[in-house]
Amino acid sequence: MKDKKETNPDFGIACPIPIQQYPHIMAAHGGGGKLMHQLIQKMFVSTFKNPQLEMEHDGATFPVSNGKLAFSTDSYVISPLFFPGGDIGSLAVHGTVNDLAMCGARPLYLSAGFILEEGFPMETLWRIVQSMGNAAQKAKVNIVTGDTKVVEKGKGDGVFINTAGVGIIEHNRHIAPSEIRREDEIILSGDIGRHGIAIMAVREGLEFESTIESDNAPVADLVMQLLDADIEIHCMRDLTRGGLSSALIEIAEKAGRHIHIEERSIPVTSEVQGACEILGFDPLYVANEGRFIAFVSQENSKKALQIMRAHPLGKDASIIGNVTAEQKPLVTMTGKIGARRIIDMLSGEQLPRIC
Amino acid sequence: MKDKKETNPDFGIACPIPIQQYPHIMAAHGGGGKLMHQLIQKMFVSTFKNPQLEMEHDGATFPVSNGKLAFSTDSYVISPLFFPGGDIGSLAVHGTVNDLAMCGARPLYLSAGFILEEGFPMETLWRIVQSMGNAAQKAKVNIVTGDTKVVEKGKGDGVFINTAGVGIIEHNRHIAPSEIRREDEIILSGDIGRHGIAIMAVREGLEFESTIESDNAPVADLVMQLLDADIEIHCMRDLTRGGLSSALIEIAEKAGRHIHIEERSIPVTSEVQGACEILGFDPLYVANEGRFIAFVSQENSKKALQIMRAHPLGKDASIIGNVTAEQKPLVTMTGKIGARRIIDMLSGEQLPRIC
Repeated sequence: MKDKKETNPDFGIACPIPIQQYPHIMAAHGGGGKLMHQLIQKMFVSTFKNPQLEMEHDGATFPVSNGKLAFSTDSYVISPLFFPGGDIGSLAVHGTVNDLAMCGARPLYLSAGFILEEGFPMETLWRIVQSMGNAAQKAKVNIVTGDTKVVEKGKGDGVFINTAGVGIIEHNRHIAPSEIRREDEIILSGDIGRHGIAIMAVREGLEFESTIESDNAPVADLVMQLLDADIEIHCMRDLTRGGLSSALIEIAEKAGRHIHIEERSIPVTSEVQGACEILGFDPLYVANEGRFIAFVSQENSKKALQIMRAHPLGKDASIIGNVTAEQKPLVTMTGKIGARRIIDMLSGEQLPRIC
Repeated sequence: MKDKKETNPDFGIACPIPIQQYPHIMAAHGGGGKLMHQLIQKMFVSTFKNPQLEMEHDGATFPVSNGKLAFSTDSYVISPLFFPGGDIGSLAVHGTVNDLAMCGARPLYLSAGFILEEGFPMETLWRIVQSMGNAAQKAKVNIVTGDTKVVEKGKGDGVFINTAGVGIIEHNRHIAPSEIRREDEIILSGDIGRHGIAIMAVREGLEFESTIESDNAPVADLVMQLLDADIEIHCMRDLTRGGLSSALIEIAEKAGRHIHIEERSIPVTSEVQGACEILGFDPLYVANEGRFIAFVSQENSKKALQIMRAHPLGKDASIIGNVTAEQKPLVTMTGKIGARRIIDMLSGEQLPRIC
């Protein structure tokens, strides 16, 4: 196991809600009365500390300048709540930060909506909230507005978290699936499959020689470096549910363009490869939470790769393929032994509640 | 019962997902593969129809001008999903639209995050999605980005919806609890208690002479009329969980100001009053979903009242009290028979899952 401090966040601050008196979440914590206000004030506002949240208004307000904003949302229902490399709290921050970054935006503000199940341990909520606060601080975003609901025991599953985010676009590029062009090169930011396999290993009680950790991380800083260097990025996508394959297929279909990749260029650790073989998964379809692909003009691809490799979150970045001249919505891959095949979207469900 | 078309939204459009083949939500509808894409494309994108959503990007982007924005979120876990006067879909739109309006903002964009329980009927989801689309259109907001998760049967409760919203502030007023002033008058936009009582009546199977309908409505248009008329509004708050009393207490506490109200000025229909007596509720604490209070300068209060009463959602508006000269965080009320009492925040939980 990794250093306990990161996988089981314990920031050494005692729970601000008296645990003896309120060991578990009760219906009244979502009822709009005294207990809800205590929870919001003492736990959320004090941890996410920022002037907007402290206004205790129905929403947050902030100034904007002429330009463009990005807006995104995700709900997080991951099970288990804590896993090697993170927890639902850090994931809920990173996931939305990453979605904003994929729009080419610098993430600024997040909202947080909690759906708590009656009976959920207060101490566990506190660990998750601290982890969110810590992740937000590191990703340089403020959690400025929120909401708390409580459902009866058996009508939820501990905690679900929704975050929505607003970010600012500080350049004039139009970054979207429709923008990819012939000969664009596709850079993958690092090895794939770690998040999904880390979760499955915990769920199935599998033990490997070394623990496989989720790649759960905020990639906005790395993306901002690419944009600041004026790299001609046409599209980006993070490789969450459905993995690398779904991201490529979605973009190929939206753009009506043929994408070809080379399997041997896709970094997969031997641990993940081994676990995939045991579990019957294909790493191409396994979810990641700190990996993305960028479609970059051929002229800029080497420079982009250099920038990525100089960043801790992009050190294993690799050019995995390109956009061909063919105008058909298709993804193909040359396998390790040279055979070429079509990459199809997953039909069924591989890994439920992975994020 | 009210006209079936509104309480049980059926917009006469056949479900775009083949019901014979997929009668229920399955795990794969949240898995990132083919079924999730079919659900997003055919149900969400086609109903919420707008250019941002059609881009199929990780988030939506939109232009902004120099000024101020508001940002808010709420999760909706209401049970039952359909009730006299609305459903979880319209509520999820109105609730966030109203939160933005309370910040003095014109609502523009919403996100929608669905947490679906495996086995949830596809046809029911379709009714809810249509209701959301319809509510968004009427409230003049676009649902521009979203997310869909599926949890196992027994780990959720049909559907939970989170919406976050972004709105634009087109004036220079600072509208917040801290801004209320001595002699501000408090205008209540209409009768209170209908939403909470409508839900309780359905849950408890109570039948009254006429069905009590939720006040579920978007109040942004009415608020914009007040702002456009340059009414000196210092604070607004919608009267959701915890009702009128909680809203007043929250503001009094944040502002450190004494608020006094008159019970006889607070409109409550005889049906709601009667139901409250049967159920043992105090209308002051019952949730509303289309009512708000506005703290307005004494000079502007008559004009504000006039504007409100001319609007269908403010026709029963009333001045219910004012901010006194005393600087203590307290709400008092003169009752119908003349006795004065302190209004306290609810300790326990009165009405779980009311929104």
